[in-house]
Amino acid sequence: MSVQRNYEREFVRTFFTSPTAIKEGDDSAKMLRRAASLRGMQAPDVWIPDNEDATAPNMRAEGAQNIVEVVSEHGADFPGEIHPRIEWHRDRPTTRLNGFEYMREIADPENGAVDHIDGFVIPEVGDIDDWKKADEAFQLVEAEHGLAEGSLSMSVIVESGEAEIALNRIRDEMGKPSNTLERMFMLVDGEVDYTKDMRGMTPTGELPPWPELRHNTSRGASAAGLVAVDGPYDNIRDVEGYKQRMEDNRAKGMTGIWSLTPGQVEVANTEPLPPVTGSWLLDVDDEDVELTADGDRQVYDGDDVSLSETADGYVLTVGGDEHELSEDDLREELLDMTSYVPSMDDIVDSMEEFEAAKESGMGAIAMTQAATLVIDGVEVSLEKDRMWDEATYQAAQTPITLFQDVYEHRPDQHEELAERYGADVVERATQVGN
Amino acid sequence: MSVQRNYEREFVRTFFTSPTAIKEGDDSAKMLRRAASLRGMQAPDVWIPDNEDATAPNMRAEGAQNIVEVVSEHGADFPGEIHPRIEWHRDRPTTRLNGFEYMREIADPENGAVDHIDGFVIPEVGDIDDWKKADEAFQLVEAEHGLAEGSLSMSVIVESGEAEIALNRIRDEMGKPSNTLERMFMLVDGEVDYTKDMRGMTPTGELPPWPELRHNTSRGASAAGLVAVDGPYDNIRDVEGYKQRMEDNRAKGMTGIWSLTPGQVEVANTEPLPPVTGSWLLDVDDEDVELTADGDRQVYDGDDVSLSETADGYVLTVGGDEHELSEDDLREELLDMTSYVPSMDDIVDSMEEFEAAKESGMGAIAMTQAATLVIDGVEVSLEKDRMWDEATYQAAQTPITLFQDVYEHRPDQHEELAERYGADVVERATQVGN
Amino acid sequence: MSVQRNYEREFVRTFFTSPTAIKEGDDSAKMLRRAASLRGMQAPDVWIPDNEDATAPNMRAEGAQNIVEVVSEHGADFPGEIHPRIEWHRDRPTTRLNGFEYMREIADPENGAVDHIDGFVIPEVGDIDDWKKADEAFQLVEAEHGLAEGSLSMSVIVESGEAEIALNRIRDEMGKPSNTLERMFMLVDGEVDYTKDMRGMTPTGELPPWPELRHNTSRGASAAGLVAVDGPYDNIRDVEGYKQRMEDNRAKGMTGIWSLTPGQVEVANTEPLPPVTGSWLLDVDDEDVELTADGDRQVYDGDDVSLSETADGYVLTVGGDEHELSEDDLREELLDMTSYVPSMDDIVDSMEEFEAAKESGMGAIAMTQAATLVIDGVEVSLEKDRMWDEATYQAAQTPITLFQDVYEHRPDQHEELAERYGADVVERATQVGN
Repeated sequence: MSVQRNYEREFVRTFFTSPTAIKEGDDSAKMLRRAASLRGMQAPDVWIPDNEDATAPNMRAEGAQNIVEVVSEHGADFPGEIHPRIEWHRDRPTTRLNGFEYMREIADPENGAVDHIDGFVIPEVGDIDDWKKADEAFQLVEAEHGLAEGSLSMSVIVESGEAEIALNRIRDEMGKPSNTLERMFMLVDGEVDYTKDMRGMTPTGELPPWPELRHNTSRGASAAGLVAVDGPYDNIRDVEGYKQRMEDNRAKGMTGIWSLTPGQVEVANTEPLPPVTGSWLLDVDDEDVELTADGDRQVYDGDDVSLSETADGYVLTVGGDEHELSEDDLREELLDMTSYVPSMDDIVDSMEEFEAAKESGMGAIAMTQAATLVIDGVEVSLEKDRMWDEATYQAAQTPITLFQDVYEHRPDQHEELAERYGADVVERATQVGN
Repeated sequence: MSVQRNYEREFVRTFFTSPTAIKEGDDSAKMLRRAASLRGMQAPDVWIPDNEDATAPNMRAEGAQNIVEVVSEHGADFPGEIHPRIEWHRDRPTTRLNGFEYMREIADPENGAVDHIDGFVIPEVGDIDDWKKADEAFQLVEAEHGLAEGSLSMSVIVESGEAEIALNRIRDEMGKPSNTLERMFMLVDGEVDYTKDMRGMTPTGELPPWPELRHNTSRGASAAGLVAVDGPYDNIRDVEGYKQRMEDNRAKGMTGIWSLTPGQVEVANTEPLPPVTGSWLLDVDDEDVELTADGDRQVYDGDDVSLSETADGYVLTVGGDEHELSEDDLREELLDMTSYVPSMDDIVDSMEEFEAAKESGMGAIAMTQAATLVIDGVEVSLEKDRMWDEATYQAAQTPITLFQDVYEHRPDQHEELAERYGADVVERATQVGN
Repeated sequence: MSVQRNYEREFVRTFFTSPTAIKEGDDSAKMLRRAASLRGMQAPDVWIPDNEDATAPNMRAEGAQNIVEVVSEHGADFPGEIHPRIEWHRDRPTTRLNGFEYMREIADPENGAVDHIDGFVIPEVGDIDDWKKADEAFQLVEAEHGLAEGSLSMSVIVESGEAEIALNRIRDEMGKPSNTLERMFMLVDGEVDYTKDMRGMTPTGELPPWPELRHNTSRGASAAGLVAVDGPYDNIRDVEGYKQRMEDNRAKGMTGIWSLTPGQVEVANTEPLPPVTGSWLLDVDDEDVELTADGDRQVYDGDDVSLSETADGYVLTVGGDEHELSEDDLREELLDMTSYVPSMDDIVDSMEEFEAAKESGMGAIAMTQAATLVIDGVEVSLEKDRMWDEATYQAAQTPITLFQDVYEHRPDQHEELAERYGADVVERATQVGN
């Protein structure tokens, strides 16, 4: 038996915070209404109407009312989940009491919103005992309102050293008789406040990268069957930086990321999915350069690698160093320097091929990618083999499982997915591995 | 309520170890006397007369006597705190017994030194139970000598795997009825012995960087309200390397560092404070190059970036790649490539501005830095905006809080601070944020 | 007192997995027999006949029989230790039951193999309670077969988030009355399955580097007196990459690595040992370039650094930047840019020298390495000093302790070691530090 939790979704790509209140009374729910209207790739997997940092303290009563109003009116049609963020602080009982009262109000069935509310997000949690206090607030609210125990999920924002340590302990604490922490859903990093709590400083005021925090969040999620989500990426215009951050996060097992705008949501929804077409990379001085596809030919356009044919063989120059190579040595060298980024289609193909092999009794098979590499006009044919066994198969399955999770929970994205990959690939991708 | 500890200082920049004993009898306290005479920027926040590794085992009885003698004579005038290091070892009871006896002697009121002793540093601690043994030694010494319970602070040197694990547990253990671990003060990394304990090896014998250890020490300090300090930087002549190490440490929330010489103390006292003047950085191939200020103009002198005006717009060349850009695109590109390192004055300004905005009811405002960038004689005006909300404000406050902590506890540095920043900036920096 | 464990070896360089079964009945033990015949540098410190992932599920009964047959016949002559891997899974009781039954069979004295079996490797462990279940399986097998309690060692493969967290807890759990976890021996990282469990994804399907996992494994091993071993390096042809991974691992305190072929075993046996001859490194743009020895002269052949003599002094050009330097400044600059990789002979020399100094009452001495550096034909004499104290001595001792551990347990490698280092160096290296 592994850890049991109440929550269904296994992956969350986007965690979208929208401000809930604006100064002038009339319009204070405008941003909420706009967020509620998002659909398809612009709509997040999880939407967080934010009644904490994005709302001024003296506007939070109005913020809670706005959440009730907008969610009761538009919640049924919103394609993602809805988890309002209420206020909370490990060191301040009055803040916790406020947060409890806002939860109580928002979840009151008489207000009509709770049918569309999937849970609440608790910021600024402390050590595991503080997480239990938050769980107690959920228990009280559920009991008072006649909601099933555990029906409201609890997600936390990790933004203190003690909360990071608590990540080690969730698995052990979930399921103890006095708590209902099986309601846990997302573990979200909040790097701005975490930096303050850790007293981190950088010359420019930029946030430190905190790789260990992200590892520990991902590990805590893995150990307790939860979902790890990274915090906001402040520079909204820097799309490449945002994508790079997500790639780093995925290598740590952190699938989701906070989005601040519908534009960021779209990027964050798309990036974790396998690419439409595969591509070849050439490792030049420890940096991966993507080759330009021209039919089956993969062309290198840069200046850092050059190749010429001689009477005896080839001269390959990499970063100023010349190597005289036979054809076989050249091929071996280029095999080491290249790697292949598989498309969705490739991954599905390989999985199907391995499944067939397994059925016929084979435990491991070689998968081959072939290409003609072109450098300075010289063509070299390469075949890249990779051994697949059960473990390779299962690791390769992660992006497909993510895709299947998306496909199941987000019918509003089916059309965009079919446009992106083609109906046939989508069909096979939803079947493979089951 | 957050963690309570007895100790007042929130930041420690320098942790200065001075050897306490030399072979020839007559001069054995000379180094101690020299350290005791340090003042101003050359004097550390915390001075550690070292009766462990820096003193030969057979000289430690004499070392303890020297500490008593020098501290009772000069301790009252020493501007920082005094925390002698005594011997201790998680695996050796005789070493622990020796350490206990030296503490007992040094803290004996009849010897006259204890009024100027702030605590003791315990090296080579093991798991949390070993920390409790050390705490017990403090309890016995305080009781016997009629000192208030907890009046002597306890700092530890983390130099074993089990001590690193214990960093996760301090918060939970502090305040339990049988211990007085509220006396904890500094968590210091000791990378030389840690490397040995972990069996770390590098080809040249250089110490590994141990980023995870430093993260865990900083996190443990944050969770338990303590102060994290990094170990010695061996290459005394390598001032740039020492500064770089401190910058890395600050990004991890580790403010303090061990200093081996008054010269290192001075560098380590100065570096964590915000700079006197702001500066602009240009990101060239993932490396930050500081631009040369010439009035409001910020000039790039290197060869890796070039810029020229054409009939249609601009050509920007970065690392060999040419980009033809319109004026707007150029400005956008350069905005992405530049960052600004704020001065003390800038930080105080921004904080004051945000405080005023908050008072007038605004939750977030944009802060702007303007400059004229000059590359190959071509001038481009830039305005860099950054949104400030409560969280940004609080994170930006860290260096100011550090400054205020220094200002409060180190009157002997007031003059040098006023010379460095100007009396006006110092005055405003001590007031802002309170 | 430090942690007690039953197991003798302190270092394991190689952990060699061999497949145990092939489809056609007759030959199914062929690979096992071939592995059992390895000797000298091609034989691993620990050999793992793999009855889990490398054997198809329906072949594991036959696999267990093959292990019994081959180990009972050839185990007495095998120079390393033998630890079969049986199947296990934290989330699947039937898999655990199978694993238990295979252990029971392989360890049955009537089958004649157990005299040569040193322990078992348990893959896919979960949290610490799952480790205790595995320990219980050992207790039952030992009791039933009349084997001494704890005589079979237990090693685990860390390939889940919860197992990584358990690494923090081994020290606390070992020695509790209900378990016999003193039988623990190796902590092995299994990055393929770990990546799956953590849901890590990379574009090319390559494994993420997981630096924090390796740190935590090494720290857990250090805290509990165990041995940390890294997982497989898939690209068998990439010897340089394999060596680089081992160098990174050693800097983390992880001495051993999984080998998939006798060729990898040989590399992995040799690399952790100190080199036969010392070498000089020049730091060029944060990369270490090995200089070419020509007698006492150390020649730089690259293009990134150049040096010329002028009327007033020297011009040193590094990465395009010219520096005009006096002879003293040049020497200082080059001292900062160079480092020395000591040979086995150098390390033994330095240790002997420090031991002699310590006996004559000195606590610290300077060790000097001298060389004549040659850049563009210009010669500069350097003397590199390093202070050695007790801590430096003990840290430098790690590779020697490793060597001594090898020498004691692997007589079949004595001849190759003597050929490599010379009999005299081997003799001194086995004596120094004792």
